Amino acid sequence: MDVLFKPRSVAVIGASADASKTSGRPIAYLQQHGFAGAIYPVNPRVSEIKGLTCYPSIAALPEVPDVAMLLLGADRAEGAVRELAALGVKACIVLASGYAETGEAGAARQTALLAAASRVDGGLSGLSGLPPMRLLGPNTIGLVNLTDSIVLSPSGALDMQTLSHGSISVVSQSGGILGSLLSRASARGVGLAKLISTSNEVDIDLADCVDYLADDPATEVIVLYIETVRNVARFKAACHKARQANGGLGKPIVAFKIGRSEAGAQAAVSHTGAMAGSDRMYDALFARCGVIRAQVFSDLLDIPLALCTGKKLNGKRVAILTSTGGAGTLVSDSLGLAGFEAPAPDAATALKLRATQTGDHAVFDKNPIDVTLAGLQPAVLRGAVAALLASASYDALIVIVGSSGVAQPSLMADAIAGALTDAPDFAHKPVLAYVSPHSPEAAAVLSSLGVPAFTAPESCAQALLGMQQQAQYQHQRQHQGQHQGQHQESASPSAEAAPLIVIPSQLNGALNEFEAKQIFAQFGVPATRETVVANSGEAAQAAQAMAQSVGLSGSQKFVLKILSNSLTHKSDVGGVAVNLTQAQVGARLDQMRADVQRHAGVVCDQFLLQDMVTGGVEMILGMHRDPVGSAILLGMGGTAAELLEDTALRLCPVDRAGARDMLESLKTWPLLNGYRGRPLADVDALLDAVVAFSNMVEALGERLVTAEINPLFVLPQGQGARAADAVMVLAS
Amino acid sequence: MDVLFKPRSVAVIGASADASKTSGRPIAYLQQHGFAGAIYPVNPRVSEIKGLTCYPSIAALPEVPDVAMLLLGADRAEGAVRELAALGVKACIVLASGYAETGEAGAARQTALLAAASRVDGGLSGLSGLPPMRLLGPNTIGLVNLTDSIVLSPSGALDMQTLSHGSISVVSQSGGILGSLLSRASARGVGLAKLISTSNEVDIDLADCVDYLADDPATEVIVLYIETVRNVARFKAACHKARQANGGLGKPIVAFKIGRSEAGAQAAVSHTGAMAGSDRMYDALFARCGVIRAQVFSDLLDIPLALCTGKKLNGKRVAILTSTGGAGTLVSDSLGLAGFEAPAPDAATALKLRATQTGDHAVFDKNPIDVTLAGLQPAVLRGAVAALLASASYDALIVIVGSSGVAQPSLMADAIAGALTDAPDFAHKPVLAYVSPHSPEAAAVLSSLGVPAFTAPESCAQALLGMQQQAQYQHQRQHQGQHQGQHQESASPSAEAAPLIVIPSQLNGALNEFEAKQIFAQFGVPATRETVVANSGEAAQAAQAMAQSVGLSGSQKFVLKILSNSLTHKSDVGGVAVNLTQAQVGARLDQMRADVQRHAGVVCDQFLLQDMVTGGVEMILGMHRDPVGSAILLGMGGTAAELLEDTALRLCPVDRAGARDMLESLKTWPLLNGYRGRPLADVDALLDAVVAFSNMVEALGERLVTAEINPLFVLPQGQGARAADAVMVLAS
Repeated sequence: MDVLFKPRSVAVIGASADASKTSGRPIAYLQQHGFAGAIYPVNPRVSEIKGLTCYPSIAALPEVPDVAMLLLGADRAEGAVRELAALGVKACIVLASGYAETGEAGAARQTALLAAASRVDGGLSGLSGLPPMRLLGPNTIGLVNLTDSIVLSPSGALDMQTLSHGSISVVSQSGGILGSLLSRASARGVGLAKLISTSNEVDIDLADCVDYLADDPATEVIVLYIETVRNVARFKAACHKARQANGGLGKPIVAFKIGRSEAGAQAAVSHTGAMAGSDRMYDALFARCGVIRAQVFSDLLDIPLALCTGKKLNGKRVAILTSTGGAGTLVSDSLGLAGFEAPAPDAATALKLRATQTGDHAVFDKNPIDVTLAGLQPAVLRGAVAALLASASYDALIVIVGSSGVAQPSLMADAIAGALTDAPDFAHKPVLAYVSPHSPEAAAVLSSLGVPAFTAPESCAQALLGMQQQAQYQHQRQHQGQHQGQHQESASPSAEAAPLIVIPSQLNGALNEFEAKQIFAQFGVPATRETVVANSGEAAQAAQAMAQSVGLSGSQKFVLKILSNSLTHKSDVGGVAVNLTQAQVGARLDQMRADVQRHAGVVCDQFLLQDMVTGGVEMILGMHRDPVGSAILLGMGGTAAELLEDTALRLCPVDRAGARDMLESLKTWPLLNGYRGRPLADVDALLDAVVAFSNMVEALGERLVTAEINPLFVLPQGQGARAADAVMVLAS
Repeated sequence: MDVLFKPRSVAVIGASADASKTSGRPIAYLQQHGFAGAIYPVNPRVSEIKGLTCYPSIAALPEVPDVAMLLLGADRAEGAVRELAALGVKACIVLASGYAETGEAGAARQTALLAAASRVDGGLSGLSGLPPMRLLGPNTIGLVNLTDSIVLSPSGALDMQTLSHGSISVVSQSGGILGSLLSRASARGVGLAKLISTSNEVDIDLADCVDYLADDPATEVIVLYIETVRNVARFKAACHKARQANGGLGKPIVAFKIGRSEAGAQAAVSHTGAMAGSDRMYDALFARCGVIRAQVFSDLLDIPLALCTGKKLNGKRVAILTSTGGAGTLVSDSLGLAGFEAPAPDAATALKLRATQTGDHAVFDKNPIDVTLAGLQPAVLRGAVAALLASASYDALIVIVGSSGVAQPSLMADAIAGALTDAPDFAHKPVLAYVSPHSPEAAAVLSSLGVPAFTAPESCAQALLGMQQQAQYQHQRQHQGQHQGQHQESASPSAEAAPLIVIPSQLNGALNEFEAKQIFAQFGVPATRETVVANSGEAAQAAQAMAQSVGLSGSQKFVLKILSNSLTHKSDVGGVAVNLTQAQVGARLDQMRADVQRHAGVVCDQFLLQDMVTGGVEMILGMHRDPVGSAILLGMGGTAAELLEDTALRLCPVDRAGARDMLESLKTWPLLNGYRGRPLADVDALLDAVVAFSNMVEALGERLVTAEINPLFVLPQGQGARAADAVMVLAS
């Protein structure tokens, strides 16, 4: 990868002498942005391009270039790739489109392209022992290494004199979006380090790039624009490496992932030929990998801008310093919506603020702290910023640039710089700016000082949320580190040891309820007490035995169900009866047999007699598997909760702490936690069940097609949890 | 109001000759932006300002000016206002701060200011018969009438050579936000008509301005920045007028309202001294008034930009035309999240698109429709836009400007202009643009052509949502118009005639359950069948009678509760028993009396025996009143639903159609509508109950402090609804 980002020589195959054409731009940009290595244009129809000798063919190149940029169309790209690979070129950037993004024929072309780079079928030059030539693309816009002034891209966004160098690197699965981010960042004066468009990812993918950038000293924050993660395991490993980077502090990763709506997912398919996983699974993946997800597109630059300051947000209390009440209120409102607090200054801070005052309308006992128009003086602002930075009441400061910022763009920036001189001990406290009027100059001055400046109040809130989430990820990582010593190998929490359980191979397909619960029970998820019976006599006998064994012969209630591997919707065919007394069980069985025969045309020969569970909270516990991985779903049961979708999803394995996080993230969690005088539920038993379920999913692997317990009754404290109904499908 | 927006002469009291000072700017701006009337500076220390004679005092003015701008501080403003009022000035703009926004003393100053403008206590010049001088402010940044080139404001945002004239008018309760919007709109080339900062609203308020702008021929869309609506009735009437304007098509109103979070509400108070109502009540108010609520601050310009095209969105199907796949997918994803569809072109449209094609990678059978880089030619784009405009498959078109927009900012705009010439019949179809790179030039060219151009994918979706909502409001209005003829007087739906019911004056305070239900029943909300009993004997007798009367002596179940005006949490003190048989009722009463005595230290002498309702869906029906008005809350009952807050809120009066909208907006609505084989609930009875409840709220007015039915059981179809528990508090 390093040679791709830092080649000493670059061949540009299919270069044009016309710099207005796409194929003319790469050489122009290489020169314009100061590439110091050798450039070899290849084009049989031209002898010289921009003062460089142009070679008629790949074979005619004067040396083996480190990297080749291939500007030919898809029809000629494969041959050129084979030739470059045979020559020993280390990496090739293929810009041509017409591959997997266009359909099956294109996907075949793409596979052939990869084969051509393998050096295996070449054999022309005896280089087949070399590792394959790395391919970036196809359908890529290339890459930009601003750190080393190496620009390998025809993106029109590079058509500017200077590009801001900085510490944010971007990996994008879309070339157009890469150009958009580059263009927008430059316009804002936001500095970037590396940008790479992986696009169709026939070889080099997201994970390769994250892995590379985790090691890149110039990169402090990694930005991802994702359509689909093709290799989840390698992506996880690369993210894990980024979290360990920077001496353990980690390099934050901020991702925007499309495919959030069905329409979007469809379009994602059409764009990259990749199958997008469901959106919540990506949320779970990002949470597991320590990736901050950008919610709106502009967050993809705004959050990194805040994170690349390297400052840490240690709480929720934000001071807002303004000279214009309206904008202060606007920011305060956005912060409040995002869960931040804007408490009034404490007495000592208010006193310090008042000492800076010269006018008499300033408001210092409220937040936003409003110095008013009269307070727009260097000394007042500087003193106020210093007082708020030093205040123990605040974890962060947002300064508002009002209309004065148009005429005096550096007024607030100077105040902050001065305050940091006065209060250097508080330089670690995050300071952000909201620029209320249109004033790119004021924003640029602040940015150059390392103060992220935003033009939307919502961006301030999102940037702080990003910092908050990064702090949480760091805390988690340190916490895991403490528990697991220095030997943590994987980004996943280690599961508690799963029991060694062997499922007989003859069990496959849809299991019946009894079989499913037996397996759940083996893994540690207890079920309701139950007996399989064939007729009314057996049912009555079993009921008597079950009642006697718990000394509840009179008041014990039973549930009777048909037991079938094929009839899954039991209640629809009259196959469920609840609240039965011991005396009713037998007759009810005969009636049920008749009902089911009438509804479904099937004569049942097996029934399940269960304890009727009362007084518990109904939950649902299930698993979901898609290209992103296997995940556990925990949610409130019952019809209303089902409609309201109060569920939590977490990638396997889920440990006890993870299970607790899931549970406490439910809006209906209070139902288990003593809400309105309810008994406390047996949360320990529920957490045991979730961990056991996760262990089961891990242990059974691909053998397990689907599994769900619904309802899982969580009884009052000390009484456990019981799977009252269950579904399981096994692959053979 | 008209004289305020279009004065022939303006006195500027406290004008400074130094144009860099706030008090020096108004005259500079008046001249710079081309005010044609007379300007009279007043300042005893200067003889001339910018070529104008400066008068030493108000008394020295050569004529009575139409409008006075008061640049003096709060200490001198009251005297000047009294003097101006006595002179017969029609309107005065008070810029000074230090009034209600600062606390009680300021609020008193503000009241005195209004009195000074009344001309009543003046009497100096015999003008006390005139109507009071209108006051704008205090604490205002003034107003800007771009239509007539009249600028009455010191806002730094006016410090530019040309301001874009247009058809969007802005009313802001914050001067700073007014400046921010003006500055941002100008930078984007978005044209504005009138801007006014009402701020403290001692006299002229939001409602006055909306009312005025509804009549203003230059205004097509009204934008509001709201901290609080001070006079709800007048606001409603003004919004209603705007909905009737434009020959019945209505002028859309787009509002951003702060106070969405507690932190925000607190700040709102500190900024304007006004008490903000709760946020959901504002949602209900806006829905009733036909106001589109902007969700993020940038929507406040983006949605109006789309609405001022005057085009109408007639459906959800959006074509996306792009040359850069990534940005197309990004927009498609945002649209999908917002509920829009991006279907593939129909066969006829695909054929037309293919006819425009010159390259071979273009994708015409999918949406986004990707002409690729090769398709960036005037004829291709023009043909594609025309084909999509004319397609019956699409209700709107979004064009994407890719990196080509930087070098060729008018490429897409020219294509649209050409296509509108080719397909003039489809000029009514909304066309929006998303500009992917930083290219203000491309955005400006599109805007000048009347194509709203956005730089955020989410803005495209929000703009379309705004158009969709406006179309719905228009439809509602027309629908109401049809039902009610041309005599509709009010923005509120007319309630069905409420019965004339008189509540005895001795009923007040917290009623007990039986009393409350009696009143609900009088208004038409039926309760469970119930009897008040004093002891076990009465209870047993009553149970027997109740069971016999429905012929259910054996299986009839009862609920027994204590009946008390003071013990509201009955179950907490052991005062509720359910599922009782006729035989159990008597003994249970004695036990309950003992339980309650033990828990609450009270001997109960009244109990309520009720039918136990089973098989119904539990709902909650209540009312809420705050400064915005009275509203009905309808939601799903039960503990889980309560935690998940599945409720709808609507301002009174609520008619049957409104009640149905509320019901169908609930996520748990399927529970009443046959979800998973459940019986259909008696929705008609529920709607009757909601309307009856609303009528009751209207009829009782201020007498009703609070009222709630929880649970309201909705039984299966044909069986009605029953209030099973109820709370009511009456004022005396």
